[in-house]
Amino acid sequence: MSAFADPGRLYFFFDYISHNAYLAWHKAPALAARHGLALTPVPVLFGAMLSHYRQVGPAELPAKSAWMLRNVLRKAKLHGIPIAPPASHPFNPLLALRVTCALDDERAVARLVDRVFRATWAEGRAVNEPAVLRALLLELGLAADELLAAAGAEPAKLRLRDNTDQALAMGLFGVPTLAARGELFWGFDDLEYLEMFLGGRDVLTA
Amino acid sequence: MSAFADPGRLYFFFDYISHNAYLAWHKAPALAARHGLALTPVPVLFGAMLSHYRQVGPAELPAKSAWMLRNVLRKAKLHGIPIAPPASHPFNPLLALRVTCALDDERAVARLVDRVFRATWAEGRAVNEPAVLRALLLELGLAADELLAAAGAEPAKLRLRDNTDQALAMGLFGVPTLAARGELFWGFDDLEYLEMFLGGRDVLTA
Repeated sequence: MSAFADPGRLYFFFDYISHNAYLAWHKAPALAARHGLALTPVPVLFGAMLSHYRQVGPAELPAKSAWMLRNVLRKAKLHGIPIAPPASHPFNPLLALRVTCALDDERAVARLVDRVFRATWAEGRAVNEPAVLRALLLELGLAADELLAAAGAEPAKLRLRDNTDQALAMGLFGVPTLAARGELFWGFDDLEYLEMFLGGRDVLTA
Repeated sequence: MSAFADPGRLYFFFDYISHNAYLAWHKAPALAARHGLALTPVPVLFGAMLSHYRQVGPAELPAKSAWMLRNVLRKAKLHGIPIAPPASHPFNPLLALRVTCALDDERAVARLVDRVFRATWAEGRAVNEPAVLRALLLELGLAADELLAAAGAEPAKLRLRDNTDQALAMGLFGVPTLAARGELFWGFDDLEYLEMFLGGRDVLTA
């Protein structure tokens, strides 16, 4: 059985590399709370999902990337979400994802996810750099050096790989994907359908 | 200069293969009319765009295809758009696109686009079959046999290829894309931003 099948939870599959995941992260906590669900962020490696499907990411297609940036800036402005993308994109999110996987405490994970997303997409910081991550961890009062060391060790690497493999087995193909009661909602634009689904107003399943 | 640069027009780049193009087609005429623009449907071959970018289409990725069908059914229901997808998808849209390219009269083109979209996505008909296209052309009072012959001749083929090449040169990467005054809006979900853009309320350009 999948580890992501608790009907009392809203699973938020993400990679820091995705600006749409950042936008969706802004909405997810209140959305989960409105429906009495616990929000569980699940770090996955988007690049591995792309490789699995032999695709390239939108950031590697200049035409799509140009459209997507404008689309994301529009959504951020319309929803009042602060945004200042990093100078370099795509960047390597592996260390940030593994550090997140090295944490066990649920509330600490949520705080770290929030902080890393904000650093990346609202402050334009390069979270691929260990020094940047270290500063963020310290700011949160976490054991920065231990966590950075743990990020390089097998359990954190394995957790990220496992998350990604399970996501693929569940039918995920991109991020962010929000999963509740076995139903998958992909992308920021799908949040309104998730809201209807959780509220018993989904036009397909109600 | 691009053939698709008249500021008095809203260009609707589409392929019949795309259900999101069908959904967007339902909204496009009223949207163009609200802003005093002439709506110009532009047939392009989505498969050629995918090849250009070395990508595969969503219909060829079972996980994405499953999500997308549910997403499209939700949007159709919420917007009151009739939908009954064809049994076989993806199908070969080439003949239907070329027949469309064989027509010159703007109003006839719009009527044909409308009829073929509806046959495909609201009536589940196989528009890859010449007999189905022939019936649709006859229903519209068009010279079916002449048009089907013209679809196999060089000018129609060339027009479709030219449309697709120009679309790629303009920065398109998928369908539907709606273009107005050089700005590209991709997908049904982008229509609300196009509406704002045309109404002078775009958060990026206003």
